[in-house]
Amino acid sequence: MSAVDNRPLSDLSPAELNDFLAAKRAAYQALQGRGLKLDLTRGKPSAAQLDLADGLLKLPTSISDADGVDVRNYGGLTGIRQIREIFAELLWVEPEQVIAGGNSSLTMMHDCLVQMLLHGPVDGQPWVGQPIKFVCPVPGYDRHFTMLASYGIEMLPVPMEADGPDVAAIEALVKDDPMVKGMWIVPTYANPVGSTISHEKAALLAAMPTAAADFKIFWDNAYAFHHLTEEEAKSEDIISLCSAAGNPNRPIMFASTSKITYAGAGVAVLAASSANVGWYQKHYQYASIGPDKVNQLRHVQFFTNAQGVRDHMVKHREILAPKFAAVDAALTAELAGLGVAEWTKPTGGYFVNLDVVDGTAGRVVQLAKEAGIVLTPAGASFPHGHDPRDRNIRLAPSFPVLEEVETAMAGVATCVALAAAEELSGRHTASASTPEGH
Amino acid sequence: MSAVDNRPLSDLSPAELNDFLAAKRAAYQALQGRGLKLDLTRGKPSAAQLDLADGLLKLPTSISDADGVDVRNYGGLTGIRQIREIFAELLWVEPEQVIAGGNSSLTMMHDCLVQMLLHGPVDGQPWVGQPIKFVCPVPGYDRHFTMLASYGIEMLPVPMEADGPDVAAIEALVKDDPMVKGMWIVPTYANPVGSTISHEKAALLAAMPTAAADFKIFWDNAYAFHHLTEEEAKSEDIISLCSAAGNPNRPIMFASTSKITYAGAGVAVLAASSANVGWYQKHYQYASIGPDKVNQLRHVQFFTNAQGVRDHMVKHREILAPKFAAVDAALTAELAGLGVAEWTKPTGGYFVNLDVVDGTAGRVVQLAKEAGIVLTPAGASFPHGHDPRDRNIRLAPSFPVLEEVETAMAGVATCVALAAAEELSGRHTASASTPEGH
Repeated sequence: MSAVDNRPLSDLSPAELNDFLAAKRAAYQALQGRGLKLDLTRGKPSAAQLDLADGLLKLPTSISDADGVDVRNYGGLTGIRQIREIFAELLWVEPEQVIAGGNSSLTMMHDCLVQMLLHGPVDGQPWVGQPIKFVCPVPGYDRHFTMLASYGIEMLPVPMEADGPDVAAIEALVKDDPMVKGMWIVPTYANPVGSTISHEKAALLAAMPTAAADFKIFWDNAYAFHHLTEEEAKSEDIISLCSAAGNPNRPIMFASTSKITYAGAGVAVLAASSANVGWYQKHYQYASIGPDKVNQLRHVQFFTNAQGVRDHMVKHREILAPKFAAVDAALTAELAGLGVAEWTKPTGGYFVNLDVVDGTAGRVVQLAKEAGIVLTPAGASFPHGHDPRDRNIRLAPSFPVLEEVETAMAGVATCVALAAAEELSGRHTASASTPEGH
Repeated sequence: MSAVDNRPLSDLSPAELNDFLAAKRAAYQALQGRGLKLDLTRGKPSAAQLDLADGLLKLPTSISDADGVDVRNYGGLTGIRQIREIFAELLWVEPEQVIAGGNSSLTMMHDCLVQMLLHGPVDGQPWVGQPIKFVCPVPGYDRHFTMLASYGIEMLPVPMEADGPDVAAIEALVKDDPMVKGMWIVPTYANPVGSTISHEKAALLAAMPTAAADFKIFWDNAYAFHHLTEEEAKSEDIISLCSAAGNPNRPIMFASTSKITYAGAGVAVLAASSANVGWYQKHYQYASIGPDKVNQLRHVQFFTNAQGVRDHMVKHREILAPKFAAVDAALTAELAGLGVAEWTKPTGGYFVNLDVVDGTAGRVVQLAKEAGIVLTPAGASFPHGHDPRDRNIRLAPSFPVLEEVETAMAGVATCVALAAAEELSGRHTASASTPEGH
């Protein structure tokens, strides 16, 4: 590398910056010459992770659940008792508070949102036709935002911090405006920033006064058990916190085995107050005669119990942790000390959050793409795909094999440095910062 | 039996009717004394039928579909190609017109209805907030009606006939009122009357002028392949008919393997014009990352191809046909010639439609219940559970074993005769004709 290594780019003289830019251009040209075809776009489990659950393919070995119900037939809107019990233990709730559904927690969130729009939540009137708003911690999960956008629901961004969202900002948004009806949050190992909400912040969210009496927290605990170190974050029990604060119907918790067994063929659950559980069943009975109980029994037999799930997650960690280490190593090797990027070192979840020089995230994604490395579109973690500072990139290292992660991330680091040098020297080419929707 | 057998009850003298009533009361008392516990309520496959599909429990034997897609992972909103091809052949459409989803066609119908409410159909504005109406052939499927009722959609009943619904009545309802936005129909072996729509009527539905430019036919072909005789009804191709009539986006066809493989763990599909398929995907992408492709591949491997489905249905017929014969035999033995009941002799599907003396259906269901035979609530096949003549009873003989069907139906026949005699003699006890909700 050149002599400017490990000094902030902003400290370089014009000549030094020029040398740096030339070096990075050469490195980028070499990168392009390698003909890579790598994909870091989505938080998908790798084939090796999916293999861990291939025992499912020979299950279930019987057709009745513990209550003697023939799982092959119709019925049982709440899901079978045993899978509810496993999730109840994992989520620190009672089995009666859990509904086990189909293969997608996103679908259960959508079902809830649709019913709140059309029928109103358990404690309110229908939301449809009103200019309702949701609080959205950013960066966040793009599919939460696109779902809201699809129904024209206004999104109010608040910053994510190391211990969860900026609760003071949320409190200010919800206290006076009755049209602020809800918020989304990934409480544990958040997508994409990796932070876990603190007990203090969870308690504040549970207790905060809201102008909307029917305010809802969509508590998407997608990564509750997805630890990357032996220091395992414990998810906050938002249901008990809200109940203790006198707001029992405020939260609905979602989780699934999508990143535990099979991403496309797992079991999703929601958990909530008994009133919310009753509300969900009341409306969903018109949409379904019951979930796929065979797949639920398949999962029960695969795991046996909650400890079986925890044990299984250790195997995922063994596959995932080296990939996250590789991301950090590649970024450190190329970018440490340059003052052009910050990135997270998550202890769980599926993502590394990379912040680059303002105004260059789109350029980095474009450069990477032209070198055969597909990244999540810049801005994807923001409402309407618009990152106002154009600096945020979500890295998803789970799907490629380790060697590909190493190769891809070395390339991404080169693109980050090149884009930074272009920006600082005022010699960037046409920017690709137009927010890409998704 | 008594000497009055095989003469219409209405021809009997008061003394003869009195004797008949006494005889039926005695028979009913004997029935009650047997302590039966039988259930003819719902169109569920029997355990023996479900057993036919137990090969599924060891499938799939691989984790990639024919296109090399890892079915365990996320993605593929339309379902895997092979299952779409199988259904396309069975439903006489193109694979591109088919979306294979989760375990429930009812859920896909609900998804469509919800999106038409909130976003509007592909050719119209959102329906929500308008006093929209649906045409409902009666008797019909109770879950269609309860779904509409749950959203406050007004239902306009029209009579079902032997060759499908009364199309003239439908044409009159749809031609002037733009709020009549759709209709439901079970085109083949209809629930509960068993009729199959004729080509002529299907063509009329496809071509009829509607005041609503975005009129939709929810074509629920739940029993398309569910033949009870070797004379197999061929479902009308409503998609081509509508397309030829210049209304390509009018129909959405639904089907599933719920009554082919596992009722609770099958694969559901919809089929429609490419515009409708695109519309569904456009909205449903916000609710799902994709269906359970493992279960779809499981089904592909189980059936191999469309002929495999047809062959499988013959095995169902062998189990079901004797039960339907038993229903007819029991009703004939007790009721033939009495002029107090009419029932269908379906050549497919899951139900026998029993019409009793006006005003006695609720009483029959009550009598049966008190003798340990649970029937579908009287009126269930009508909007809001209200049969204006209180005469219709849906019999569902699929679930119990043959001997139970024979026993239960002999009992039901006694209840029908007793209720008729009570009614005609003016000596009935407190009526149970209050419409029972679903």
